[in-house]
Amino acid sequence: MKITEIRLSDGRRLRYYDADGAPPRDAAADQRGLPPISTHSELRHDPLLDEWVMVASHRQDRTYKPSAQDCPLCPSRPGHSTEIPAEDYAVVVFQNRFPALAPAPAEATGWQHGSLASRPGAGSCEVICFTAEHDTPVAALPPAQLELVVQAWCDRSVALSRLPGVQQVFCFENSGADIGVILDHPHGQIYAYPFVTPRTARMLTSVADYRSRTGGNLFDDRLADELSDGSRVLLRTTWWTAFVPHAARWPYEVHAYPNQRVPDLAALDDRALAELPFVYADLLGRFGRLFERPAPYIAAWHQAPAGARDDFALHLQLFTIRRTSDKLKYLAGSESGMGAFANDIRPEAAAETLRALGSPLVAMDPKDAGEGAD
Amino acid sequence: MKITEIRLSDGRRLRYYDADGAPPRDAAADQRGLPPISTHSELRHDPLLDEWVMVASHRQDRTYKPSAQDCPLCPSRPGHSTEIPAEDYAVVVFQNRFPALAPAPAEATGWQHGSLASRPGAGSCEVICFTAEHDTPVAALPPAQLELVVQAWCDRSVALSRLPGVQQVFCFENSGADIGVILDHPHGQIYAYPFVTPRTARMLTSVADYRSRTGGNLFDDRLADELSDGSRVLLRTTWWTAFVPHAARWPYEVHAYPNQRVPDLAALDDRALAELPFVYADLLGRFGRLFERPAPYIAAWHQAPAGARDDFALHLQLFTIRRTSDKLKYLAGSESGMGAFANDIRPEAAAETLRALGSPLVAMDPKDAGEGAD
Repeated sequence: MKITEIRLSDGRRLRYYDADGAPPRDAAADQRGLPPISTHSELRHDPLLDEWVMVASHRQDRTYKPSAQDCPLCPSRPGHSTEIPAEDYAVVVFQNRFPALAPAPAEATGWQHGSLASRPGAGSCEVICFTAEHDTPVAALPPAQLELVVQAWCDRSVALSRLPGVQQVFCFENSGADIGVILDHPHGQIYAYPFVTPRTARMLTSVADYRSRTGGNLFDDRLADELSDGSRVLLRTTWWTAFVPHAARWPYEVHAYPNQRVPDLAALDDRALAELPFVYADLLGRFGRLFERPAPYIAAWHQAPAGARDDFALHLQLFTIRRTSDKLKYLAGSESGMGAFANDIRPEAAAETLRALGSPLVAMDPKDAGEGAD
Repeated sequence: MKITEIRLSDGRRLRYYDADGAPPRDAAADQRGLPPISTHSELRHDPLLDEWVMVASHRQDRTYKPSAQDCPLCPSRPGHSTEIPAEDYAVVVFQNRFPALAPAPAEATGWQHGSLASRPGAGSCEVICFTAEHDTPVAALPPAQLELVVQAWCDRSVALSRLPGVQQVFCFENSGADIGVILDHPHGQIYAYPFVTPRTARMLTSVADYRSRTGGNLFDDRLADELSDGSRVLLRTTWWTAFVPHAARWPYEVHAYPNQRVPDLAALDDRALAELPFVYADLLGRFGRLFERPAPYIAAWHQAPAGARDDFALHLQLFTIRRTSDKLKYLAGSESGMGAFANDIRPEAAAETLRALGSPLVAMDPKDAGEGAD
């Protein structure tokens, strides 16, 4: 993998990721002359839930559903300068122009008045374009292309986790207008949070409780319990296992784990890394075939936060809010008000449906995938 | 208040709530001859988050957006039998035909295999119709009508909390198609959970930590801190205070507390109860005027769970997912994957907007409201 870094005209960093054998990179300069960005991101503490909320009012004016013609994530062409100055690219990562979190000015400080507290929303929000092709679904990208995506995730996760104050790096993809995606171009996001997120904090508490109660690792034992039960397992290769969890919250929800627990993407064994593009494309492909048109989805990579690597297990959480071809699962009073989820589809039924949608990929033969990685 | 209870043809209970001076109730029998309901609601434990998820697959086929002509919540009329057999009603509460939680059969038991656990989804889900008039927004209901609604909430909260195994009763209203409301008729829901919900559990932890650290009550001190700051306060009467919280998660979010802390609706002082219809209608009215068309909203009444009444504070959480006339706030990767919320509207700006939308209600004069209650 080769990385070429440039600065956009407003000072944001952009990095091209190219395969080792790729021709020399066109690192054209950004011709747009954008004004420097001014962000005022703030973290506010909710004392009742003991959680931080990001307040970023500059985001209210962000780009909203441009036409394909005006896509800001396609390569630049004469007469249409985009976020990517080059006329082509493989994978590219750059700082979001409308970030929920951004490097804080040196003079920024926090405050506390009684139970109310605030601090700068220091961190980073990056955009990752998975391909230069506007219309190719992520599930249809060639394995070599997805391998480059995974390498970029690893590279940015390591780099961002070294920034002062960053506690956790989150690589994720939102796909589909039904969950508010405003740009069609295949892309994901990478957030570097200056706090441990609520979901991660709760997982760490559960894992620590379990360790002190049983001496074991909850992630390992749960994976073993799901395999032992078997009724919700979707795939099991030499390096990866994917299943619908026993207590799935969403109509179709899949968790995928490497068989050998590691804390984050960068810690994956080379062979688990090499198989990942096949597993990822296979799972996304099933979501693409669930309904008449592709299911909207969120693909979330859960990685260990700073200082809690020992007991954490890297995993992918993939889910859709669609429950039938024409019905969505809404988060209404019970979910949004109380955090109490009701799932209308039995996880075993969801697993059966998703199992039937698997593609007969060569890569799903564990031996082949393992050999391909050597 | 007078209560008249009947049974629907499938065995579900229905209660009419009428004002003291109302004429004798038409308690017509349900003519539909519905087959008995069979529900298979199950609670599944998510070991990583230590939360229970309700799995209720019979709900997948529930009524979906019928036309006004076919509304099942209007009074029955010749040729159209609805859920309410009477030809008119004031306020009515009945058991949901498609409940996420329902009384469990005596033989139902739970199980645990390693980290996977399940138990019956024993509890109750009730529907409350706020008025017989299909097209009247809740904010426009006369105070006497809303008083009856509040009385019904109190009555059902007390009754449901006495059911075996019920830990918490939740009165709430979902309003608007954008959050998935499938019936237009003004109505709310009442859930009796057999567990303490995730949001409530976290509030209880925070309140206990605060008590042991400071000796004070976090709800009281936070209310005092919001009043002392003042920049987000929407209304302050003799009995109630409403504000946009410092760390609001939603574009427009309001919390309303009685000035004297009580654990639940039934514990409200008569004068606070008497003022509540005015406060509730006023707040809903502001959400109705926020945009060109009424904002979709969730109105959630947070009440103390069983065994934790001492330090809990009853409060209303009212919020919309709409951030402009034509844009929604979606819960995408950061919110749904990590529980980390980003709010694009500064809570002070939201408070300023909502303050300007207040109606000059006589009831907002604290003296008048207090007198009205005597």
